[in-house]
Amino acid sequence: MPKEPARPLVAGIDLGGTNILAAVVDAKNNIIGRAKKKTKSDQSSNEIVGRIVKCLRDCLDAAGVKAGEVAALCVGAPGPLDPPAGVVISAPNLGWSNVPLKALLEKELGIPTLLDNDVNIGTYGEFMLGAGCGAKDMIGIFVGTGIGGGLVLQGRLHRGFNHTAGEVGHLVVKMGGPLCGCGNRGCLEAIAGRAGMVREIAYQISRGRKSLVDKLTGGDLEQARSRVLAEAYAKQDPVVVEVFQAAIEALGVTLGGLVNFLSPDTVVIGGGIAAAMGKPYVDAIAEVARRNAFPQCMKNVRIVPAALGDDAGVLGAALLARESLG
Amino acid sequence: MPKEPARPLVAGIDLGGTNILAAVVDAKNNIIGRAKKKTKSDQSSNEIVGRIVKCLRDCLDAAGVKAGEVAALCVGAPGPLDPPAGVVISAPNLGWSNVPLKALLEKELGIPTLLDNDVNIGTYGEFMLGAGCGAKDMIGIFVGTGIGGGLVLQGRLHRGFNHTAGEVGHLVVKMGGPLCGCGNRGCLEAIAGRAGMVREIAYQISRGRKSLVDKLTGGDLEQARSRVLAEAYAKQDPVVVEVFQAAIEALGVTLGGLVNFLSPDTVVIGGGIAAAMGKPYVDAIAEVARRNAFPQCMKNVRIVPAALGDDAGVLGAALLARESLG
Repeated sequence: MPKEPARPLVAGIDLGGTNILAAVVDAKNNIIGRAKKKTKSDQSSNEIVGRIVKCLRDCLDAAGVKAGEVAALCVGAPGPLDPPAGVVISAPNLGWSNVPLKALLEKELGIPTLLDNDVNIGTYGEFMLGAGCGAKDMIGIFVGTGIGGGLVLQGRLHRGFNHTAGEVGHLVVKMGGPLCGCGNRGCLEAIAGRAGMVREIAYQISRGRKSLVDKLTGGDLEQARSRVLAEAYAKQDPVVVEVFQAAIEALGVTLGGLVNFLSPDTVVIGGGIAAAMGKPYVDAIAEVARRNAFPQCMKNVRIVPAALGDDAGVLGAALLARESLG
Repeated sequence: MPKEPARPLVAGIDLGGTNILAAVVDAKNNIIGRAKKKTKSDQSSNEIVGRIVKCLRDCLDAAGVKAGEVAALCVGAPGPLDPPAGVVISAPNLGWSNVPLKALLEKELGIPTLLDNDVNIGTYGEFMLGAGCGAKDMIGIFVGTGIGGGLVLQGRLHRGFNHTAGEVGHLVVKMGGPLCGCGNRGCLEAIAGRAGMVREIAYQISRGRKSLVDKLTGGDLEQARSRVLAEAYAKQDPVVVEVFQAAIEALGVTLGGLVNFLSPDTVVIGGGIAAAMGKPYVDAIAEVARRNAFPQCMKNVRIVPAALGDDAGVLGAALLARESLG
């Protein structure tokens, strides 16, 4: 039998509004070096790109390898993007507009670079090495400040015609419902994303109701991170419990519809809110989804929490980089 | 150059609650024989299967070919189905429960037979030979009594893990909205399917409003077929116009979300209501969808009326039969 060719080293970067994460991954899909830097999104795009480069160099140093030994790099960035052109069209979180990230990184690092959506890399990481391992058709849903998603169909990341597939947060589940950042009303994200939940909690407080969140954030609700909401929920704060119940219902109803629509074998639910709330939150969403979907569509479908935490993105990116080598 | 092998004859059957349609299709995808019979869904499954067999034999006679010359047959049936087993699990329209349709037809006809969903065959027909010709990622939406759908992804019919994919009518677009036949509230079908629209018209009449539909159906609203609704709409009957506006809004909002979610290049809208209402109806849905989706997701996406009418199903079925030959 011919010997299998050695699989080269690959690298992944997860570019977020708060942190830049980088990892180098070996032939056995182990992370052999990692690094992390603050994004400092108030600075210019040139400065941020400089920090991405520095982060990857730190990560190569940690792994003890040279840039020339890395066969490919994939960066997951917030969008909208033009992946084939390697351009971040617009990233409000970063203050970016039309940044040719692929070209800039290739020039600095000399590594063939791929650009993909930040949620796609997390979905692919969970699919290949995490909670979705062994799946064939998988939906990834990530509940954080907003709600993002990714799709794996027939074992491959589905990007679609405009390279935008996976957008789960802007399915309208309640026509005439709360206003969403996108301008529509009743999007899933407006009800079940952290920003939407905090807005509803603030509204309830403004109506004279009391909530622990007020105290836990020192009255500055903008500081209500996922852990704060999870703490108030654990302490059965009535306002927070109500808001979470509505969020879980909207997530479950949407997910039930998507299971009917796409017939996946696996759904992975991750993101900051899911991580802070733990498995009972995912189980509650799954229960609503099972009640809403047709039994034949839901048969043997797994609905599970994400397993890789912050590593999902860099691992998924690195494996997409490897996949791009053909 | 080696000569391409001749493509064999294939046949397709579209089994509906009212009619059975059959066609034999030649190597160039032309229908060379067709037949049609009443389903008579009040009769036993044995009698209906007998009529399916007779319908295909009539169709073979019309084409002047023998059963042995047909390499494969595909039947599109209402579901839920178990396609690999060839069993119709439950078809309330036909009064069927666990009918092994594939085995029964193979025994009678001696032609290798495939079972698929009635909406999938229509979607595949439009994709291969109709309005979706040239598409790669396509959503088919069929608005009739209910609302069904089908998906083509990467040029192939997407059936998914439970062979149930495409179910677009039971995406919830208005939580707390009108009760749907499936037991949920606010499904797209409950607002925009014919049965849901007629229910709302009946409710408005019961509240004392006047509607042309009352007169056009002789007071028997159950008789309000698609053409009757389209006629009342064309005459600007206020109740019917209102109900259509709500239906078009719900269809457009749902479609906008699905374009965000799946990033198709083409959406084909067909079915009895779409056929009766014509292109302005599809254009109105498309306009709402374009307003609701992200511009980058909607860029260059075609939203078009189905083109094949009743032939979509039998043609799609026949081509799926051919595809099954490998």
